[in-house]
Amino acid sequence: MSQPLFGQVTIIGCGLIGSSLARDIAANRLAREIVGVDSDPEHCRQVVELGLASRASGDAAAGVRDADLVIIATPVSTYAEIGRQIASALKPGAIVTDVGSVKVAVIQALAGILPTHVQFVPGHPIAGGEKSGPSAGSAGIFNDRWSVLTPPPGTEQTAIDKVAEMWSAIGARVELMEAARHDQVLAMTSHLPHLIGFAIVHTANKLAEDTKSEVIKFSAGGFRDSTRIAASDPTMWRDIFLSNKAAVLDTLQRFTEELTMLQKAIRDGDGATLYATFSKTREIRRAVIDQKQAFDQKQ
Amino acid sequence: MSQPLFGQVTIIGCGLIGSSLARDIAANRLAREIVGVDSDPEHCRQVVELGLASRASGDAAAGVRDADLVIIATPVSTYAEIGRQIASALKPGAIVTDVGSVKVAVIQALAGILPTHVQFVPGHPIAGGEKSGPSAGSAGIFNDRWSVLTPPPGTEQTAIDKVAEMWSAIGARVELMEAARHDQVLAMTSHLPHLIGFAIVHTANKLAEDTKSEVIKFSAGGFRDSTRIAASDPTMWRDIFLSNKAAVLDTLQRFTEELTMLQKAIRDGDGATLYATFSKTREIRRAVIDQKQAFDQKQ
Repeated sequence: MSQPLFGQVTIIGCGLIGSSLARDIAANRLAREIVGVDSDPEHCRQVVELGLASRASGDAAAGVRDADLVIIATPVSTYAEIGRQIASALKPGAIVTDVGSVKVAVIQALAGILPTHVQFVPGHPIAGGEKSGPSAGSAGIFNDRWSVLTPPPGTEQTAIDKVAEMWSAIGARVELMEAARHDQVLAMTSHLPHLIGFAIVHTANKLAEDTKSEVIKFSAGGFRDSTRIAASDPTMWRDIFLSNKAAVLDTLQRFTEELTMLQKAIRDGDGATLYATFSKTREIRRAVIDQKQAFDQKQ
Repeated sequence: MSQPLFGQVTIIGCGLIGSSLARDIAANRLAREIVGVDSDPEHCRQVVELGLASRASGDAAAGVRDADLVIIATPVSTYAEIGRQIASALKPGAIVTDVGSVKVAVIQALAGILPTHVQFVPGHPIAGGEKSGPSAGSAGIFNDRWSVLTPPPGTEQTAIDKVAEMWSAIGARVELMEAARHDQVLAMTSHLPHLIGFAIVHTANKLAEDTKSEVIKFSAGGFRDSTRIAASDPTMWRDIFLSNKAAVLDTLQRFTEELTMLQKAIRDGDGATLYATFSKTREIRRAVIDQKQAFDQKQ
């Protein structure tokens, strides 16, 4: 049997993404040992019980002590504190990566905290769901999904290569990208749609009780998709919006301008503008389907 | 074999919904004969070729002449013109129904046009997809979906019952509702989410070409759902927004207020407001799941 890619891998944050990654790393024999760290004792109990880690505790420093790879999979607001906890325990040559949905802010959060004898390779697998916790994870969720790595200038190539190799081994498609660019693109593809999903469901939530019950009953329009999005983890999304503030506010402003244009067309009875706009948006759908990110399914 | 529910059923508009309905009516032997009417000769050719109608043409008056049930399944902006074309050809006792997504406007459009010797039972099956045309339809799409009937005061009960019986026979759950109420609820569950889906994709469409291609590439966030919605039929949706203007603008105003509140919270770094809002929206998701309109699936 060939040597595993890593000796000890420590996963900090054993939620949906962290626990799924543990499953895939184990299934592909990419580590000699997987260690879990989670502030929730119940999560620690579950990951060991599920066989996803040989041991797990809330002590991050102890958890990373012999780690060759540390994967941070917690809400991004916790990174600085985690960095301070693990900095002195990390062994020379260790690689630290993460799975956070924003990248500029996490690079800033860890800069100057992690010791110079470790390499930080920021990453973001574009996968997930609205559920939380170790039991919500499953093997294979990264298969055929993008995993974007945004190493800052000066990151050692061997460290980048090893993290890329891990993602490739579990079936993800790896893409290198500049961190600021990543945050701008994700603001459009993920952060804005989620913010709007929350806003749509919040709007429904404020309706009078009788109307609200009918909205729930007849939710089989676009509203059902919105409720799925709006059931996503509140802490994770609070952190995403606050830590990608500039890109989110810029994208939101562009969106508001387009929505206002459509609102005015409706008010003015301007069917030509509505028709022209809706025809153009079909082209984007075709491009998405061509990119094989979406499948041509019925609703 | 028992008597079919109707003798001749004429379907005006053989698109996704019209052709699917033809499939279900035939499969459940609810009509002695199905006749198609469509302004597009290609659609007429297809519905006959697919065996969905015994004959089909662009002549609405000829198509409805012996019909016991006429189903209007065209964009709502065409109703008044269709009403004028068929009014004098409808036989006494015929029932006219429709599948339009707005109800107050279609009742107004046909009021005074349809002869008093026919009964109009407005209907709206909450089903569909973003594709168009007879080949996009399929049997069973109404199964376990709501079909809302909004008969105006004075509609004969026997006519309402026959239309309800048709929907029940093909597996739909029938609900009676006041037309204005329907339009208000659907503005929230369907019209607003679609308008926003169009606006999100239109925003992406206006980005610089290089950013746009990356947005398409990494579309696996909430953006992919938006592109599906925004690929819906432009004519149908133009008509929905213009004919349900008051309810759509009112709902849009409420949404904008909530979105602005979230925008301000992001700008101010007010994590507590974001967290509280996102936690509340999870409750609505649970209610939707409880209503069995959504299933508890992974993304």
